[in-house]
Amino acid sequence: MSRCRRLTWFIAVLFAGFVTVSGVSAQSPAAYGCVKAKYVFLFIGDGLGMPQRAAATEFLKDSGMERRLAMEAMPVHGVTATRAADRFITGSAAAGTAMATGVKTNIGCIGVDASLRPVATLAERAKREGFKVGILSSVSIDHATPAAFYAHEPSRSMYHEIDHALAASDIDFFGGGGLKDPEGKKSEAPRGDALAAAKANGFTVADSRRKIMDLGKGDGRVIAINPRLPDGKAMPYDMDRNRKDVSLAELTQKAVELLDGDPGFFIMVEGGKIDWACHANDAAAAIKDTLAFDDAVAVAVDFAATHPDETLIVVTGDHECGGLALGFSGTKYATSYSLMNHQTKSHQAFFDDVFAGYLKKKGSFDGAMKLVKAHFGLAPDADGPLALKPFEVAELKRAFDASLRGETLKPGMADYMLYGSYDPFTMQLTHLLNRKAGLGWTTYSHTGVPVLTSASGAGASLFSGCYDNTDIAKKIAHVMNL
Amino acid sequence: MSRCRRLTWFIAVLFAGFVTVSGVSAQSPAAYGCVKAKYVFLFIGDGLGMPQRAAATEFLKDSGMERRLAMEAMPVHGVTATRAADRFITGSAAAGTAMATGVKTNIGCIGVDASLRPVATLAERAKREGFKVGILSSVSIDHATPAAFYAHEPSRSMYHEIDHALAASDIDFFGGGGLKDPEGKKSEAPRGDALAAAKANGFTVADSRRKIMDLGKGDGRVIAINPRLPDGKAMPYDMDRNRKDVSLAELTQKAVELLDGDPGFFIMVEGGKIDWACHANDAAAAIKDTLAFDDAVAVAVDFAATHPDETLIVVTGDHECGGLALGFSGTKYATSYSLMNHQTKSHQAFFDDVFAGYLKKKGSFDGAMKLVKAHFGLAPDADGPLALKPFEVAELKRAFDASLRGETLKPGMADYMLYGSYDPFTMQLTHLLNRKAGLGWTTYSHTGVPVLTSASGAGASLFSGCYDNTDIAKKIAHVMNL
Repeated sequence: MSRCRRLTWFIAVLFAGFVTVSGVSAQSPAAYGCVKAKYVFLFIGDGLGMPQRAAATEFLKDSGMERRLAMEAMPVHGVTATRAADRFITGSAAAGTAMATGVKTNIGCIGVDASLRPVATLAERAKREGFKVGILSSVSIDHATPAAFYAHEPSRSMYHEIDHALAASDIDFFGGGGLKDPEGKKSEAPRGDALAAAKANGFTVADSRRKIMDLGKGDGRVIAINPRLPDGKAMPYDMDRNRKDVSLAELTQKAVELLDGDPGFFIMVEGGKIDWACHANDAAAAIKDTLAFDDAVAVAVDFAATHPDETLIVVTGDHECGGLALGFSGTKYATSYSLMNHQTKSHQAFFDDVFAGYLKKKGSFDGAMKLVKAHFGLAPDADGPLALKPFEVAELKRAFDASLRGETLKPGMADYMLYGSYDPFTMQLTHLLNRKAGLGWTTYSHTGVPVLTSASGAGASLFSGCYDNTDIAKKIAHVMNL
Repeated sequence: MSRCRRLTWFIAVLFAGFVTVSGVSAQSPAAYGCVKAKYVFLFIGDGLGMPQRAAATEFLKDSGMERRLAMEAMPVHGVTATRAADRFITGSAAAGTAMATGVKTNIGCIGVDASLRPVATLAERAKREGFKVGILSSVSIDHATPAAFYAHEPSRSMYHEIDHALAASDIDFFGGGGLKDPEGKKSEAPRGDALAAAKANGFTVADSRRKIMDLGKGDGRVIAINPRLPDGKAMPYDMDRNRKDVSLAELTQKAVELLDGDPGFFIMVEGGKIDWACHANDAAAAIKDTLAFDDAVAVAVDFAATHPDETLIVVTGDHECGGLALGFSGTKYATSYSLMNHQTKSHQAFFDDVFAGYLKKKGSFDGAMKLVKAHFGLAPDADGPLALKPFEVAELKRAFDASLRGETLKPGMADYMLYGSYDPFTMQLTHLLNRKAGLGWTTYSHTGVPVLTSASGAGASLFSGCYDNTDIAKKIAHVMNL
């Protein structure tokens, strides 16, 4: 360690420890000192609050797995406030923009400030300095979080415009899900096929596991799209992943392989479906996508082991989602998170692959209960905590009838609190299994509780204390000398 | 700052930043260096998780109050895991013992390890070194958290034995609520009046506001008991406090006044009714007791301003309670925490002072709805978000009927999820007001999510990072050179 770096760490750590304040940081970039990183990873778990992280840890322990989360093993941890400029409970666009640009903005805004002025992102500033840049997500790569790193639009739902920003960008690696509106079917001013435009701009598009795994440095700039995109152009939930799919960790490994070299890289990896699972109050899917996200973090940790003084890894969440709480009234002080191993598919795959067809052919409630036992382990005659009590069967019957009616519930309707706008029967099932495990949810939306940020490597000490989500961008920009 | 202290901080901060790990700390006391504090405050918010802290902050902001929480303004923050030796979701006895002794123990144990062997507490070790010691709580001073600092019993419910440990102790200042079983009415082996034994052991007992406020150094060792103890020998919820009561901040100020001097002091202050409010899912009472707890923290901050290099203040929680989430399905992304200003009394005072008598005289539902409007602002014809929808009135009617029946609900019964073992109508009311504010709860018990620890002053840097609740005792013992 150079004398400068030693001194700097002393000053930086003192500042990180003593000058940061909760909510809004009092840190000034000048206080950070001269630590520099050549390789920077920013992992954003969408919807990854402290409850989600702690639930994943306890799930591993209760399931008898020795594994420790890579993000939990990091040496530095901080608490990050998430509010948007115009709302206490933030959304992924405002939070993504905060972490990509260091600027507080309004709900829905992508890469623009609250006055809708474009703001340079970490990815753009890194490219300007010659770094290679990768943007990865397990949901569509034009979704709010990844888009906040390369697009500048007043609304996250302008997918066609975001797709063209992606196509026109000089980002080196996009990977994960697909594009939501490449052809402009939902745009007021379609600009033609964004994927064709991306190819014309020099991107290689790889859209099978084979093509993705075969990508090499000679392929130039790359868009790697998982072949199966079962919902909203997103990769499957990790618990539904099969041999045709790539994992988020494999994509991260591929990005590292392609972008490694001078003068370094900035790679943002979003675990996007943690959020989707939490919106649907599906704890098993949320935990398993958190583990898949952590597998991707572990890829970075392995890389850092070979470049310890030059690599910074930051792992954070953009907001909590679902109001997940690690305790439930019905189970009081008891928990048994390993019960969630009885769930065979995510709520989405259970509905799409199993229950939607059953509903269509107007199957009976008794028959549905056989599906319940097969896919969630729950039954009136099941053993121990998986046994359904009469009032729980009544809850399922009520939900089954609501599913048969097929109405979409809206906020303000009494049953919205029970099922959100999801299939009622599926929702009641995840709720029941989660409750028996000892987990509760309060909402189908995000919540305002601060999130946990963890860091390791060069400049990691800057990430201790309490600070705002905008500080994540400022700290990273400083460590990258942007 | 001496050269040793400078060097020590450098080393300590590096260790705190780089060697601590989540869940179980890898810190060794030898790594902490030679920072010393003469005056040490440990504030334990019972049931004070991150959601409770963030809710209090947002309540202040939404109510247009400029105030910033003293604990949030601290320079150092860490994340603390709370599990007990024998259960993921801890209780106050095991958590209190962890923080008082540095030893992980089982649920219900007070100052003993998991093999029921007594372990020396910070308070006892501080006394041995000549420090003055104060133990304060807004609940009974023989409750689990305070008891863990001076008693050694296999069960927290051995109140008579704990009361005699208190009476026989050499602690200098006890303050807050009363004693739960001084005469041994619930003990298998009564030992006579513990309060008389305390007086015989030299304690002055002050049990009115006047007597407490008039206490001076000449009064020797002191037991200061708030005159009004409306439930379970605890002080009233802060929102129910009146002119006859002392506040937790006033008690803290009095403790500082009496214990100040050489060679220093250790003062533990518990905000005990935050937990009780959260058990009852009463967010207004929880937030206002959190603010009262923070007022006590502010007393320590003021003291530290005059002894900046010699004072350590640590603020933590023993566990989250209630599964409080800062978002609710019915309100989606909207929040309006200032609505809780419409609640005039805690759930306890509303039931005891208003609704219990109404129930007794078999009042009508229509009449009860007038009480609802007067004390919670909720009514079918109320303005804006306080307006009750027909389905919400139906929920209140169902709860009212359950209150009339007067049955005590138990876990496993369907309605337990709705009301816990509390008065159903009162519970539905706090739930409804909390929901309209945008807050949800999942349980009437504790939860397993880690809590936030904040620190300022001498040795505060040790409290950054992620660590176990047992590390709180180890770090404080180190800073006090115990």
